[in-house]
Amino acid sequence: MDLVIISIGLGLLAIVYGFVTSKQVLSADPGNTRMQEIAGAIQEGAQAYLRRQYTTIAFVGLVVAVLVTVFLGPISGVGFVIGAILSGVAGFIGMNISVRSNVRTASAAQRGLQQGLTLAFRAGAITGMLVAGLALLAIAVFFYVLVGVMAFAPNSRTVVDGLVALAFGASLISIFARLGGGIFTKAADVGADLVGKVEAGIPEDDPRNPAVIADNVGDNVGDCAGMAADLFETYVVTVGATMVLTALLLGNLGTLLMPMMSLPLLIGGACIVTSIIGTYFVRLGGGTNIMGAMYKGFLVTAVLSVPLIWFVMQLALGDMTVVLGGDATNGAAGAVGFTGQDLFWCAMLGLVITGLIIWITEYYTGTNYRPVRSIAKSSETGHGTNVIQGLAISLEATALPTVVIVAGIIIAYQLAGLIGIAYAATAMLALAGMVVALDAYGPVTDNAGGIAEMAGLDDSVREKTDALDAVGNTTKAVTKGYAIGSAGLAALVLFAAYTTDLKHFFPGLGVNFSLENPYVIVGLLLGALLPYLFGAMGMTAVGRAAGDVVKDVRDQFAGNPGIMAGTSRPDYARTVDLVTRAAIKEMILPSLLPVLAPVAVYFVITLVAGQANGFAALGALLLGVIVGGLFVALSMTSGGGAWDNAKKYIEDGNHGGKGSDAHKAAVTGDTVGDPYKDTAGPAVNPMIKITNIVALLMLAALAGG
Amino acid sequence: MDLVIISIGLGLLAIVYGFVTSKQVLSADPGNTRMQEIAGAIQEGAQAYLRRQYTTIAFVGLVVAVLVTVFLGPISGVGFVIGAILSGVAGFIGMNISVRSNVRTASAAQRGLQQGLTLAFRAGAITGMLVAGLALLAIAVFFYVLVGVMAFAPNSRTVVDGLVALAFGASLISIFARLGGGIFTKAADVGADLVGKVEAGIPEDDPRNPAVIADNVGDNVGDCAGMAADLFETYVVTVGATMVLTALLLGNLGTLLMPMMSLPLLIGGACIVTSIIGTYFVRLGGGTNIMGAMYKGFLVTAVLSVPLIWFVMQLALGDMTVVLGGDATNGAAGAVGFTGQDLFWCAMLGLVITGLIIWITEYYTGTNYRPVRSIAKSSETGHGTNVIQGLAISLEATALPTVVIVAGIIIAYQLAGLIGIAYAATAMLALAGMVVALDAYGPVTDNAGGIAEMAGLDDSVREKTDALDAVGNTTKAVTKGYAIGSAGLAALVLFAAYTTDLKHFFPGLGVNFSLENPYVIVGLLLGALLPYLFGAMGMTAVGRAAGDVVKDVRDQFAGNPGIMAGTSRPDYARTVDLVTRAAIKEMILPSLLPVLAPVAVYFVITLVAGQANGFAALGALLLGVIVGGLFVALSMTSGGGAWDNAKKYIEDGNHGGKGSDAHKAAVTGDTVGDPYKDTAGPAVNPMIKITNIVALLMLAALAGG
Repeated sequence: MDLVIISIGLGLLAIVYGFVTSKQVLSADPGNTRMQEIAGAIQEGAQAYLRRQYTTIAFVGLVVAVLVTVFLGPISGVGFVIGAILSGVAGFIGMNISVRSNVRTASAAQRGLQQGLTLAFRAGAITGMLVAGLALLAIAVFFYVLVGVMAFAPNSRTVVDGLVALAFGASLISIFARLGGGIFTKAADVGADLVGKVEAGIPEDDPRNPAVIADNVGDNVGDCAGMAADLFETYVVTVGATMVLTALLLGNLGTLLMPMMSLPLLIGGACIVTSIIGTYFVRLGGGTNIMGAMYKGFLVTAVLSVPLIWFVMQLALGDMTVVLGGDATNGAAGAVGFTGQDLFWCAMLGLVITGLIIWITEYYTGTNYRPVRSIAKSSETGHGTNVIQGLAISLEATALPTVVIVAGIIIAYQLAGLIGIAYAATAMLALAGMVVALDAYGPVTDNAGGIAEMAGLDDSVREKTDALDAVGNTTKAVTKGYAIGSAGLAALVLFAAYTTDLKHFFPGLGVNFSLENPYVIVGLLLGALLPYLFGAMGMTAVGRAAGDVVKDVRDQFAGNPGIMAGTSRPDYARTVDLVTRAAIKEMILPSLLPVLAPVAVYFVITLVAGQANGFAALGALLLGVIVGGLFVALSMTSGGGAWDNAKKYIEDGNHGGKGSDAHKAAVTGDTVGDPYKDTAGPAVNPMIKITNIVALLMLAALAGG
Repeated sequence: MDLVIISIGLGLLAIVYGFVTSKQVLSADPGNTRMQEIAGAIQEGAQAYLRRQYTTIAFVGLVVAVLVTVFLGPISGVGFVIGAILSGVAGFIGMNISVRSNVRTASAAQRGLQQGLTLAFRAGAITGMLVAGLALLAIAVFFYVLVGVMAFAPNSRTVVDGLVALAFGASLISIFARLGGGIFTKAADVGADLVGKVEAGIPEDDPRNPAVIADNVGDNVGDCAGMAADLFETYVVTVGATMVLTALLLGNLGTLLMPMMSLPLLIGGACIVTSIIGTYFVRLGGGTNIMGAMYKGFLVTAVLSVPLIWFVMQLALGDMTVVLGGDATNGAAGAVGFTGQDLFWCAMLGLVITGLIIWITEYYTGTNYRPVRSIAKSSETGHGTNVIQGLAISLEATALPTVVIVAGIIIAYQLAGLIGIAYAATAMLALAGMVVALDAYGPVTDNAGGIAEMAGLDDSVREKTDALDAVGNTTKAVTKGYAIGSAGLAALVLFAAYTTDLKHFFPGLGVNFSLENPYVIVGLLLGALLPYLFGAMGMTAVGRAAGDVVKDVRDQFAGNPGIMAGTSRPDYARTVDLVTRAAIKEMILPSLLPVLAPVAVYFVITLVAGQANGFAALGALLLGVIVGGLFVALSMTSGGGAWDNAKKYIEDGNHGGKGSDAHKAAVTGDTVGDPYKDTAGPAVNPMIKITNIVALLMLAALAGG
């Protein structure tokens, strides 16, 4: 139990870091009155949105909590509620830090690029550490109470089901947050651009545009709160699934079982320490290479994690050469037995995969490489060729990450079977604190630029925030690639948990998961369909809500000519309220898709072809959703990032620069990429996990009933 | 053997129909000198392109033919060559009919809508019947020679491998034709639009545009020749795979084996008769509902096929209630034994699936329904929202066809196991004559419109050809949905052949196809990647080649000001030649992807994890490519069709009509949809089949070596 307590301590360390750094950030200069006024409006809008979103989610969450309690018992019910609430808290804190740091970053950027970077990055780091810390604490404390206080065996059904329910709570809230926030931010963004830049011919972030505050609110509730909830979910599910798989597969480890179940928590704790250290290395060092400064911080974290992970593994396992047990769950070769050393290499593999995915994402979304430049170039021949090339890049961008993930699966499996894959995924997620820090920095600088523009600060300030923001586009894409990549591995772990559970609960059923079983193929096809349908709903929602924004802004312009003249203030709150209502309404149905689909597929196929085939189709559905979802998510997030930066590249003076025909075409591409990369694409990650977790819970419920 | 001879007779009937109808079409009025001159240029360009394409393909084909002969023996080599040559012939004939009917349709449209429809549809019907007839003859004659003349047992390896090699030849040529033709047609189309409509501000099909002939050539080599080769391939593979699966699974049927193997041919022959009858029912009957006239013809064919299929099945099997054998290849329930009656219901299911897919495709691409109208409406707010809504529709359009295919799989499997699925697919393809007729009609009317425009005919003529062309957009989308839907079923049949062959050739290996085997997941992921990579290559190729066209046209305008003034003729041939070279160059690499990927995956995984896992990963790759490819193809073909008709809907006077901002946005959407629906999307169908067939041949080669 000592190891769990150490993990709890390290989780608390992250919280302490968050509080201390918050103090620093909040003590920074909040700028002049006009800036504070604008920031106040953004803050108010964001809080109002989140309040409404969480009220709606709370209602759905309550219904599900009751169902979980009825079918799986009160402990699972409590686990679900903890996961759900902390997922919400992660988003809430992220948003609150973000809406206070934006104006301070704008103010700091008046003094210099380094000052702006420091403030924005610190704000991101607070969110990052709190997400990782809360996620670690959620699992560690829950596990401690169940095993240490209530004395359940670590591999008992109560603990396993409780952990799965905890993950479910986190996932369910995060899909709402990702999707609701994603619809909000992009409806406001697209709507504001269409009616402002395109129709009225006023610049981005012009205070005369009634949708401009909504656009800035969107950065906070979508890119920050939604992202934080998403990564919280990814962390909890991955670490939780590793523990569950350990309990299910290695139940006969004896005295080593408890250390092995605590080990994922310890690895997470160790990397919180290295992430905190890494944040202090993010500095320009004289130059202006912002991306380089980011990389420095990440690299320090990754390198320091190597010895520290070794250290905590040795601490937990003692002798690293003891064989920890073969993986007897399937007949494939290459997984006879593994040692602590093998697991260490799997963890290293996780770090390498993270590094490669970051590198690949930068290649596909950075302005220095072929993909973005090819889109920029194709903008010269018009809107159509820009979109064609962007779509081509988005399709192409799936290839390298897939190869990396496939190689990761093969190597981890060769080293230590399914547990090896779980450790690779856990090590990936252990770095979440640092990765979220890099990402959460983005919306802060984006907002800072908006505030600088609206408050009429000197152009040099906007230039600095723009430079910071361009890097933010890439880091945002990186987090999404990282989240979906880890989801690829985590989903395999969840699927293994599903098949192991199935054998446990229904030992005599003989479910045939072979590709030769047509019901498996049916499940794969239906699973692969889910991300498509989900993506369609998300894209349509953004289009529809953006259309509402356009109409509202047109109405405001028509009803009050003083707005365009600059003599009277537009009604910002009205637009924020409109987008809020639209986003909340549109997020419900698609979010329920991954909850209901597994239930429907199981019951329909069971009815038609018997329970064994029902379970086979359900299992295949779980893999189908990852096989389909991985590509949909990768292509959307990379493609969207590439479009965005192609526009930025042209705005830097290439292919005719701002105002040229190429720029107009690039704006179209950027608009198309918006819902791709910030609404539909990233929400696929929690969707995959929910489908898997619902299946696991359904198994337990069916066995109990 | 009598049954095979009857099938050969029915195949010849299709050829006779083709010749007789050709005579009628060619005797029609070919229009005035100017029209003939233009048609001559198109004809010349199309023939030049096809000559070059086939020369290149012949080179690749020769290499592959040698490899097939070396590894699998001379009979398989001959089979490959037959498939390859006839696939080429199908495309060649289709193109030749098309380039002669276009001008005659333009001429007939001067006399009335019914006259134009009759001529264009007859031209389509010739191609349709020749594709179906040649495909049927290819298999039937080859089978007759092997079994009837050379006296091989119908289920001997020689016959099985020979049929697979025949399918391979057809597929390999068709992927080149689909992709090369697709790149040609869309590079010319996009390039011509960009530089003509957008840059120079001249209308579509304006004779001053040097790319205008290339655009019209493209309709013939892509939408006609490429499509014909594709459907030839689909027919041969589906019917061939059904025969192969019968040989592999039902080898112990005794005297019923030969009739059972001939039955797919007979069904094909029967539906040629009903298709021919159906063509005579395509008439307007006083009104102007062109789509209705098309449906009438299709419906007559489908309804007449019901009794005729029953009749030929009874002819072959005698007693329709005799149990034909259980499907023992897998442990799934629901396939204990089946009768001729069960197979009849499976065939009926195939007809129903065809009808449903046609209906769904019309819903998603027709101007009367929500999807196209939603895209048209979203064009009002600009390029960006048009593309967003189009992408949303393209994602959504995968849902219903997938559900139909999944339901088809379940019902057919419940009725008669894997053979049931094969019969459903065979019945679908049996209607190919009629479906191709509906499709091949499209490029003829498209060209007719172009010729009317260039020859300066009265506007009323163009109005009539436009009305015919709008329906062509939907029928083109229908054929693609139908081809990819049938590919979903056919690929399952091929996968079953793969697993059965695997057990036959490597009885002791114990390949584990369970989803619990990580190498299966690796295969699924890599398989699903193939259509993405392939799509990316196709899209990029079109973008690149279209860019070349733009530059060439700009050069011509700059070098010869007389062109825009209308005083001198542009150098059409130069542009045609440029697109030809670009298309041929760009088609090679992506076409080889599905040939080389299975080989690479098998050898790499075998090296890493042993031969059993190599075969497991390869098998999973085959399903991965269909799971991934189905969605990519459906979304691209439906989305592209919807974009095209959204533009047409606006041009009909909605949302501001021609020249409005909404129209400009819709033109962008149409441009984006072009390579989606005519290059990358449809080529996925032969790609799926090639991957599967290469795996089957590799198995045989590995076992022999």
